[in-house]
Amino acid sequence: MLCKTLYAVVGGDLRQAAIANALVQKCRRAQVCGMFMEKETELSSAEIYKTNDISQVFPKAAVIIFPLPVSVDGEFISAPFSEKKLPFDCLKYINKDAQVFAGAVSQAFRDTASKYNIKLWDYFEREELAILNAVPTAEGAVEIALRESPRTLFGQSCLITGYGRVAKAVARLLPAFGAKTAVAARSFRDLARAAADGLETVPMGTLANRLPQADIIFNTVPSNILTQSLLEKVPGDCLIIDLASKPGGLDFGAARELGLKVIWALSLPGKVAPITAGEIILETIENIIAEKAYCYANEMEL
Amino acid sequence: MLCKTLYAVVGGDLRQAAIANALVQKCRRAQVCGMFMEKETELSSAEIYKTNDISQVFPKAAVIIFPLPVSVDGEFISAPFSEKKLPFDCLKYINKDAQVFAGAVSQAFRDTASKYNIKLWDYFEREELAILNAVPTAEGAVEIALRESPRTLFGQSCLITGYGRVAKAVARLLPAFGAKTAVAARSFRDLARAAADGLETVPMGTLANRLPQADIIFNTVPSNILTQSLLEKVPGDCLIIDLASKPGGLDFGAARELGLKVIWALSLPGKVAPITAGEIILETIENIIAEKAYCYANEMEL
Amino acid sequence: MLCKTLYAVVGGDLRQAAIANALVQKCRRAQVCGMFMEKETELSSAEIYKTNDISQVFPKAAVIIFPLPVSVDGEFISAPFSEKKLPFDCLKYINKDAQVFAGAVSQAFRDTASKYNIKLWDYFEREELAILNAVPTAEGAVEIALRESPRTLFGQSCLITGYGRVAKAVARLLPAFGAKTAVAARSFRDLARAAADGLETVPMGTLANRLPQADIIFNTVPSNILTQSLLEKVPGDCLIIDLASKPGGLDFGAARELGLKVIWALSLPGKVAPITAGEIILETIENIIAEKAYCYANEMEL
Amino acid sequence: MLCKTLYAVVGGDLRQAAIANALVQKCRRAQVCGMFMEKETELSSAEIYKTNDISQVFPKAAVIIFPLPVSVDGEFISAPFSEKKLPFDCLKYINKDAQVFAGAVSQAFRDTASKYNIKLWDYFEREELAILNAVPTAEGAVEIALRESPRTLFGQSCLITGYGRVAKAVARLLPAFGAKTAVAARSFRDLARAAADGLETVPMGTLANRLPQADIIFNTVPSNILTQSLLEKVPGDCLIIDLASKPGGLDFGAARELGLKVIWALSLPGKVAPITAGEIILETIENIIAEKAYCYANEMEL
Repeated sequence: MLCKTLYAVVGGDLRQAAIANALVQKCRRAQVCGMFMEKETELSSAEIYKTNDISQVFPKAAVIIFPLPVSVDGEFISAPFSEKKLPFDCLKYINKDAQVFAGAVSQAFRDTASKYNIKLWDYFEREELAILNAVPTAEGAVEIALRESPRTLFGQSCLITGYGRVAKAVARLLPAFGAKTAVAARSFRDLARAAADGLETVPMGTLANRLPQADIIFNTVPSNILTQSLLEKVPGDCLIIDLASKPGGLDFGAARELGLKVIWALSLPGKVAPITAGEIILETIENIIAEKAYCYANEMEL
Repeated sequence: MLCKTLYAVVGGDLRQAAIANALVQKCRRAQVCGMFMEKETELSSAEIYKTNDISQVFPKAAVIIFPLPVSVDGEFISAPFSEKKLPFDCLKYINKDAQVFAGAVSQAFRDTASKYNIKLWDYFEREELAILNAVPTAEGAVEIALRESPRTLFGQSCLITGYGRVAKAVARLLPAFGAKTAVAARSFRDLARAAADGLETVPMGTLANRLPQADIIFNTVPSNILTQSLLEKVPGDCLIIDLASKPGGLDFGAARELGLKVIWALSLPGKVAPITAGEIILETIENIIAEKAYCYANEMEL
Repeated sequence: MLCKTLYAVVGGDLRQAAIANALVQKCRRAQVCGMFMEKETELSSAEIYKTNDISQVFPKAAVIIFPLPVSVDGEFISAPFSEKKLPFDCLKYINKDAQVFAGAVSQAFRDTASKYNIKLWDYFEREELAILNAVPTAEGAVEIALRESPRTLFGQSCLITGYGRVAKAVARLLPAFGAKTAVAARSFRDLARAAADGLETVPMGTLANRLPQADIIFNTVPSNILTQSLLEKVPGDCLIIDLASKPGGLDFGAARELGLKVIWALSLPGKVAPITAGEIILETIENIIAEKAYCYANEMEL
Repeated sequence: MLCKTLYAVVGGDLRQAAIANALVQKCRRAQVCGMFMEKETELSSAEIYKTNDISQVFPKAAVIIFPLPVSVDGEFISAPFSEKKLPFDCLKYINKDAQVFAGAVSQAFRDTASKYNIKLWDYFEREELAILNAVPTAEGAVEIALRESPRTLFGQSCLITGYGRVAKAVARLLPAFGAKTAVAARSFRDLARAAADGLETVPMGTLANRLPQADIIFNTVPSNILTQSLLEKVPGDCLIIDLASKPGGLDFGAARELGLKVIWALSLPGKVAPITAGEIILETIENIIAEKAYCYANEMEL
């Protein structure tokens, strides 16, 4: 990681504070500015210089790290620890040689970066971040299951829908608890993967037959696969934990009418393990910087 | 399990309600009285006949199940779901042929039973109950660790002190999360067991050297092993989860002065998984009944 | 699976015998011909009709299963259990409506099939077969490690190169034995996957630093990554198990000169677990048939 | 470990050679004599001084390590790597202050030691040795299962009888392979332990019902529990691996008549992992020496 340089870590939640702290630890000779994070948190480090003075810091910063997501409202940088607001147009102060990173970049933010000739990397598009983020997501899902059920996970019959990154991470934890764990998937490939990983498999077309035995369902498929007619097969005391991003994986209205307990758990990494989630972002940014240096050294197009 | 009979499940918390429910499920031809549990809970089943009418029910009951612990105050049966109070002397109504079970029986309760010639079994003394109860205890400990730490368990350095039943159950879960897991124990036997179970081992005499790397400590030894001088070696952001019964395993005063975060987690099974904890009690009672029947059939002394 | 039909299972090793046996078990009303497998094996079932009479059987067969690989010499169907030889031209007897399956099909075989208008499926190209075959491959690799080392796997330092299907299957087994397990991979994605799976990771560029600690190396990369200069870093008593197909993953000449013990373990599934390997092939063929039926029913192009 | 001293490692198989090698590695300033092991083995180290000159070495040796078992024939020290024979009476040359260790000591050997006032420790009686030896035993059992079965362990139905140290070690490995693993035990305590370890449990009284599903049976109970009538319930292609010491756990005559494949695998640690097995013995001896030193320092009776 480049050191002896100025890092600006801008806005964001506890993950950004964690990134700033980790930078302070790693790069002893670097200066780290935490910008638009003036509220005190338990993660605050005395060595982070906190400021909102964009026009002073941005021109000198070599690396600028915007939060994940870069914006919630589409107009201002996400900065829940600050009472001030930072519009996208702040990009104009950034030095053209600076390396700028942001997560889940919107088109408007990308357009602003282009306007000022700033090269921008969206770390949220990197596969290693998605893979590593599945770990805190799965831990958060297990924490919910432990908290919400009056039974042990041991002995429960758990059903995971889908077998992507999050599903795999959840499926690594449940059998260790002694939970009977089945995976419902559509493709022969995913069913083979789940089988090879030692899990019971349920072809998606036969899901209706398996639902009546489920004690806990972890959905990871971001499309309405648990329709009303399928939800009717689910036992009344089953717990449904939906880990899928919008629109979620089930008919929430039908679930409510059936009296089913549903927890839609979004954005778990930043909530359950902000320090780890911040470190994952920083590691991903380091990978991008390493790749850029390698490509530059080898005269390759990035 | 004997059926076509009257069961009285007396007092207690959600575990007793779970026992009554499980009996209703298992013994279709049995009558199950839930006594001194008149408050409604989510575990209430319509098929449990709720009553406080001791003089009617006890003389007819073939099996009477008192709670764990049988009493908190040493005078009355523990019954947090009831506003009425039931003194130990209620035992006088019990039929001499009835099978009576209670947990963590005090001398006073045992004396009262003797006075009325009632044969009493303390299911809390059974080893299988202690073994199975370690499972909800370990799940509760992991739930606390997940909830209290701003990091994932993945990648954390966990230290377990002691290697008895609870420690083993915790040590089964942590490595599955990707936590580096070490066990500190005193005897060569326990160190060998932990090593054979794939864990890093720390002879108790060298604990001071290992404490500085600990992110989370799970204590299971019920004596003051984490003294002030050892606590001084523990990192400031370490989380200590004390699973040991009284007096606990550390110098709480010293920990407070050092600003260490300590959670003393007692009686986890009934709190985190009352249904499972109730079923474990019921299974243990069934084992006792099976053994009694076997001994009776073979003219053996119990 | 279609039953009441004639299956011809042609040539091949114990896997083909296992396929024929499994078909007899599954499809009670089917006839199963084991062709060109006249030598008695312990897998022979009385219910398989053994014959070499191509001109009688092929015209009537609804499903014809050729072995994996379909041919070793490029001229004749692989048939080690037969003294007779079956040339590719046997395809001319096959009914045009028959479903024909073969594994690792050569261009010559495919050309012959085209010449006679036979639709041919190569089950070896299916991803689920590759995923499921990684299981017997990994078990074979562990068996070799157990057999060849005068130490327990417990406590050994194992290094896996690559993190594809076979590497993942090996990496599931080794930590269960208590072996310290590291994965060397090139891409940030594979390194993240290995990390999320709880394994130590080694960027391929730093492999030289890690080799001196290796007790056992499992290579899964089919290109010469363990060059002479890297092999010089390997301890003299290290065991190298090469699971990669040709050209293998190391400089075999250099390894020999250095006196390193290398076992090049090819085609393990058919060797270490022929029944399971046959069942995997049959399951894959059933998947292809199910997909064809689905596409036909929905008027989709296959 | 005491160094700058003379160690005599006497007779025995590859384990004794491994002990001598490990001593050379650990105690750089010590002299290590390998006595009665003159045949060259791959474990031979140039730094071990090999000799059969009892009258020279024994009087000067501070630590003398006899093999496990100390004798096979009851007359001479077990020494398969030597053509000469060493009678028990060799003990007369040993210095009275020497620390003498042997494994599975017979009464005759113990009597000879008493006769010459030699204090003798039988390391085979130590619990940590038994616990750690269960690891190579379990690996050897898995190696046999992998080698002897034409199927993968993945998907097999395995039944373990007994739940002591060896059974637990086997039960740690099988589920990692994806084998369905059940434990048959007699006591409620052992059944609870197996259940808490996530395994299916079979009360010994109901074993007859479970045997028909077994693909592989691992017996660990050293008494004839698999009687003829039970063996008749075992499927014909089931593999039985008997890990119990004499008399073994089954009616071998009945098994032969039923055509069942039985492998009686005795003394696996020394066979499948002699180096590890030797290191376990040495670690146990070090523990004994440490305890003796501790007791001596604290004026305690050993």
